[in-house]
Amino acid sequence: MKFSCSGLDLSDAVLKVVRAAAVRTTNPILECVKLSAEDDKLTLTCTDLELTIIKTIKADVKIEGEAVIPAKFFSEFARMISSEQITFTMRDNNTFEILYGSNTATLQCQNAEEFPQPKELEAPEKIVIKSNNFKDLVTKASVAVAQDDSRPMLKGILLEINGNELNGVALDGVRMALIKKQIESATAEFGIIVSARSLLEIIKLLPEKNNEITILTQKNHLMINLDDTILITRLLGHRADFVSYQQIIPNEFSTSITVNKQHLSDTIERASLLNRIERNHIINLNIKDETMVITSQSELGNITEHLQIVHTGNDLKIDFNGRFITDALHVINEQFVKINFGGSMSPCIITGNDTNEYLYLILPMRV
Amino acid sequence: MKFSCSGLDLSDAVLKVVRAAAVRTTNPILECVKLSAEDDKLTLTCTDLELTIIKTIKADVKIEGEAVIPAKFFSEFARMISSEQITFTMRDNNTFEILYGSNTATLQCQNAEEFPQPKELEAPEKIVIKSNNFKDLVTKASVAVAQDDSRPMLKGILLEINGNELNGVALDGVRMALIKKQIESATAEFGIIVSARSLLEIIKLLPEKNNEITILTQKNHLMINLDDTILITRLLGHRADFVSYQQIIPNEFSTSITVNKQHLSDTIERASLLNRIERNHIINLNIKDETMVITSQSELGNITEHLQIVHTGNDLKIDFNGRFITDALHVINEQFVKINFGGSMSPCIITGNDTNEYLYLILPMRV
Repeated sequence: MKFSCSGLDLSDAVLKVVRAAAVRTTNPILECVKLSAEDDKLTLTCTDLELTIIKTIKADVKIEGEAVIPAKFFSEFARMISSEQITFTMRDNNTFEILYGSNTATLQCQNAEEFPQPKELEAPEKIVIKSNNFKDLVTKASVAVAQDDSRPMLKGILLEINGNELNGVALDGVRMALIKKQIESATAEFGIIVSARSLLEIIKLLPEKNNEITILTQKNHLMINLDDTILITRLLGHRADFVSYQQIIPNEFSTSITVNKQHLSDTIERASLLNRIERNHIINLNIKDETMVITSQSELGNITEHLQIVHTGNDLKIDFNGRFITDALHVINEQFVKINFGGSMSPCIITGNDTNEYLYLILPMRV
Repeated sequence: MKFSCSGLDLSDAVLKVVRAAAVRTTNPILECVKLSAEDDKLTLTCTDLELTIIKTIKADVKIEGEAVIPAKFFSEFARMISSEQITFTMRDNNTFEILYGSNTATLQCQNAEEFPQPKELEAPEKIVIKSNNFKDLVTKASVAVAQDDSRPMLKGILLEINGNELNGVALDGVRMALIKKQIESATAEFGIIVSARSLLEIIKLLPEKNNEITILTQKNHLMINLDDTILITRLLGHRADFVSYQQIIPNEFSTSITVNKQHLSDTIERASLLNRIERNHIINLNIKDETMVITSQSELGNITEHLQIVHTGNDLKIDFNGRFITDALHVINEQFVKINFGGSMSPCIITGNDTNEYLYLILPMRV
């Protein structure tokens, strides 16, 4: 194996694929990057067995071949020599020689045959969607993904085709996100559960332009094939493995308010400063006439804030974990949100004032 | 106690003084800020008993008085309400009421009498120095300050008047920094040891303009009195408590090189990537003719770099902890540095190519 390439191209590519490399694993080859030189191309691959990222750059290949070297070291090293033209040569004793300027690094390689092969997807289903719609869906749904490992399916987002919409659903037992985005086309109505962590890495690598992207999916994998980048993630499960979320959403409400999103967010942030030390994040909402009074209490003292609202239905006093509300508000782009309540023991529903693209359901706290 | 002030002034002031508040202490009052309203001024004070920061802002004082409240909470809270005019009122039951817009926070106060009183400095010695000179001295000397607690004096910088210069000296057993800066005047030749941590906080609060500042010092304290800010730190000791550093500096050398600072720094950074995992940071320098070859080795592989140098004296092979060299290079502003060696078992001395303002001494490693 022998090839040369631009340090800048290499540095850019390795910084992207290294996001899929495992960190602190018992299988060191998953902490590596595989370099494959073939034709006039260098292909870099990292995988932690859940997420796989493959990136191809131009290279002047003299002898084709493969090498597997430590990913974290190599990404930092490539960044530091990105100003140079770099030549790589595989030596007999499985050492990989890197020439840059008048300098040399030699690295011990791992056995390339032990590096996991990426899956081929045969006869997959397809979704075509604008990349901004997909990014927004993942960002908004991931807010409600479970953080603990007790129920692995809840660390995923259910992606479900419903007519000409893609639904993204996440829930963690005390809150739920349901995000709906228009698609361009889909080959079937199906539902898959994909790791939120993988999806958040994947959307970082989607092009900035709002192009159409094609999402391929088959029994066990989801794949997005961009120009020089292939993103693959293993599915966590299918629709049947997920909670029947539609039954959770109430459709009768006794109190409804519309409120400025930023004012509500700022208010809850301030209120949460006080009880952050006690880590309970409890805030009380008191809705009466055209005012909502938000209070928080802790050993340090208490905070009382007043917000102007548009209010229909009953007056209401209800307690929430304030963080669950601000988590949702932070990813909403609108100026106003609508919040519907079914009484002090029922969940609230945060939706758009002008759009049905998102719905957050949050259970109240029983203080 | 009752006063009003600008949220912006308050937020700026509390963010400055909170740097001196204690974190995780057994004495909770040291985690607080004291607010003192008097005449048309509000004075904020934080102290961890080593460093004290006092800041005064304009306020509309209706009733004079003092309040002591949690500093970290208050600094974050003040930042969040900085757009408002704020009114503070002390209520009967030692609760402190904060009115902002139509909102209210009430805080439980600590007993103001328990808050430590800042020291008055009587008949102090004085140093007058340009603020940029003082900042540079502290930044450059702090590189060599000991990080562990085994010898408390070595966590300080010796500040020593020597004619019309201020010397800053720090050492940690394997390296030493000696920084010399011109002063405008001093009342006596004296030497004091001041906590590097306090000095680094103090220089952050010095004005950006290169004004003359007056450093006052007395038996146990150092004080800088700026327009609206007073900075006080307790001394760790006096010259007699410090190492006799002059005896450590060799004055005969067998090898001398001049090298581009940035190239040397980049080279060592790259070499250190390899052995960072083993945390030994060992690099080997091989000086021969007009080239210095820098090598590092680890289980991962090895790196060999070549640097052009200007070289007088003997050829030399010597091992160093690369981090000790880059720590010094990072705070040096010149394009070239001079490094003098007395053989492979003797310390090297890094000095300016054009200036004697700084000197770093670094012991070699015995591999």
